[in-house]
Amino acid sequence: MSKGNTPRDLASPKVLAVDPYVPGAQINEEGWIKLNTNECPFPPSPLVIDAAQKELDRITLYPDPPARKLRAKIASHWKKEPEAVIAGNGSDDILNCLIRVFSDESRKAGAMNPSYSLYPILAAANGTLWEDIPFETPFRLPVDAILERNFNLFFLTCPHAPSGVVFPIAEIERLADGMDGILVVDEAYGDFAGQSTISLLRKYPNLFITRSFSKSFGLAGLRIGYGVGSPEIVELLDRVRDSYNLDRIAQVAGIAALADWGYYEATIGKSTYIRDFYRNEIESLGWKVYPSQANFLFIRPETKAREHGEKTASSLFEFLKDRRILVRYFGSHALTRDFLRISIGDEDQMMVLWDTINEWLNNA
Amino acid sequence: MSKGNTPRDLASPKVLAVDPYVPGAQINEEGWIKLNTNECPFPPSPLVIDAAQKELDRITLYPDPPARKLRAKIASHWKKEPEAVIAGNGSDDILNCLIRVFSDESRKAGAMNPSYSLYPILAAANGTLWEDIPFETPFRLPVDAILERNFNLFFLTCPHAPSGVVFPIAEIERLADGMDGILVVDEAYGDFAGQSTISLLRKYPNLFITRSFSKSFGLAGLRIGYGVGSPEIVELLDRVRDSYNLDRIAQVAGIAALADWGYYEATIGKSTYIRDFYRNEIESLGWKVYPSQANFLFIRPETKAREHGEKTASSLFEFLKDRRILVRYFGSHALTRDFLRISIGDEDQMMVLWDTINEWLNNA
Repeated sequence: MSKGNTPRDLASPKVLAVDPYVPGAQINEEGWIKLNTNECPFPPSPLVIDAAQKELDRITLYPDPPARKLRAKIASHWKKEPEAVIAGNGSDDILNCLIRVFSDESRKAGAMNPSYSLYPILAAANGTLWEDIPFETPFRLPVDAILERNFNLFFLTCPHAPSGVVFPIAEIERLADGMDGILVVDEAYGDFAGQSTISLLRKYPNLFITRSFSKSFGLAGLRIGYGVGSPEIVELLDRVRDSYNLDRIAQVAGIAALADWGYYEATIGKSTYIRDFYRNEIESLGWKVYPSQANFLFIRPETKAREHGEKTASSLFEFLKDRRILVRYFGSHALTRDFLRISIGDEDQMMVLWDTINEWLNNA
Repeated sequence: MSKGNTPRDLASPKVLAVDPYVPGAQINEEGWIKLNTNECPFPPSPLVIDAAQKELDRITLYPDPPARKLRAKIASHWKKEPEAVIAGNGSDDILNCLIRVFSDESRKAGAMNPSYSLYPILAAANGTLWEDIPFETPFRLPVDAILERNFNLFFLTCPHAPSGVVFPIAEIERLADGMDGILVVDEAYGDFAGQSTISLLRKYPNLFITRSFSKSFGLAGLRIGYGVGSPEIVELLDRVRDSYNLDRIAQVAGIAALADWGYYEATIGKSTYIRDFYRNEIESLGWKVYPSQANFLFIRPETKAREHGEKTASSLFEFLKDRRILVRYFGSHALTRDFLRISIGDEDQMMVLWDTINEWLNNA
């Protein structure tokens, strides 16, 4: 190296400004109750395991680059044409493609703050002009404020994370209708909700919806996500997509999962039943908890003396962690730092959680 | 959508200029001899299949985002520190991260033309200033011509594709030494060669090497690749890497493959033996064939009347295809259009290929 440049000297300046995403802790030790990253507590369909095992016989061969059979299966699940669907290495992959296609240093992208903290990181890595929109009233959608900002690309997490609430379809429709840019509704938690914006696609060519197999299908370990919207958007996303973004196992697993939708209706039903049951229990303590339509609850712990706040939330977080129950605490935002986000586990895990919360309550 | 913009109106202009990558055909029908995408004809180690099957029990859980155990295993294979290694969804993923970090509209990237045709496509999707370097003498490295162009990032495929030749280590060293930017040596075919530039990493902090599990490890269907170089480069690449880029199955399969290196030494040995045997056979026909150090041969077919050229190469390509033998033809470049690239299959496949070539020769 003749001039002695360091790698940092050679890097594009936008990359030096990136603050990498910090995912929830992935603990591999046995004995933990892991309620921090919204994974599914139930096993995947036996058809999925069977398909994955059989596909190992073909593992020396490259996968189908566009994952055509998986796209077609997803399309038929939603009664869309295959050209309206793109499959990705998790929905994160699709979100990244959206950022790369529809935003840059002069084409502004944005999202509600707080929502999924990955969006602005993907934007920074792309050198995208970015703007956060704050909530005026906690977790109510400020449609007019968004419209005023003239976004080229806007991400709306619905069901919202970390609150779990859904925004009214009519409000989302007003947003899609009023925007001159692309509205992405991130429905990673959509299967747990009583609504989807997929039916709005027919009316709004600027609407695009992303979904995931990680939560409702119990396949977080395989990285399968997808996007649904106009074929013209899909064609543009395909230009920046890694040509072999989905491996063979992921492709056949996704197809098998959708082929056993009845199985998943049952596990999703169990999760939403447990969610609503514990939402009532938490409310019976007098604690604030948002009406979640996702597979987690966003709760504001209170001490026996009815104190809540950052200290109280941290105290319960640490108390649970000491007893090997891992939940998620977002301490960096005024709207989240008094709360804990707790993924919905199975009956046994939730029982242990409930007993441990009561133990804390008696000590706090 | 109030203004009636189409998605194309809203896309970043660099994306509209992208001409998507066309991978070699992935045929799923039975009965074909597939020698077009350099896949491994031998099954993966039984340890790999066993590890993948066991991991399906944990598939509801997210993978470790940075794939730490896989990085550590790769590092120990090369006697490097774990911080010197990044793992990716195929080495394509790492190549894309390199483009995004070390090139942009003013930081020039480039590669030899012909070489891996994905590089300029990744560059276009990033809005990167790109320059191809032609070969002055076919498949001899023009070190001074590259140095003159002041690249911020340069990709050198070695063993080279599609010729299969290696460039002398001393020449690569002169390039690394003289460059002010990052030199990436793409060793996707490195395990089939009698040399690697990995030993040069100690001397050149601007050198970075990418490798793949798709070819030598027979895991094309799982998408596992990696990069080795200075920890400072790895840290920068991690900023633009998808945080969950490698799924659980891929992570454990990569670890198990490296744990059974003895098995792969044997299958790689078989491939190189078959390659060298058939290189001699092809030469005995009087055809030009480059001294390949990869798992393919780049051959220039000749008719009985000793004619060669585009027509002859296409004729053999079609003749093989009609008999369900798929090889690769790159008709768009003067240095490749008289040739066919043929992946090394197993003994039986190569015997059928050889007989079919002779059949063509008797008819051509």
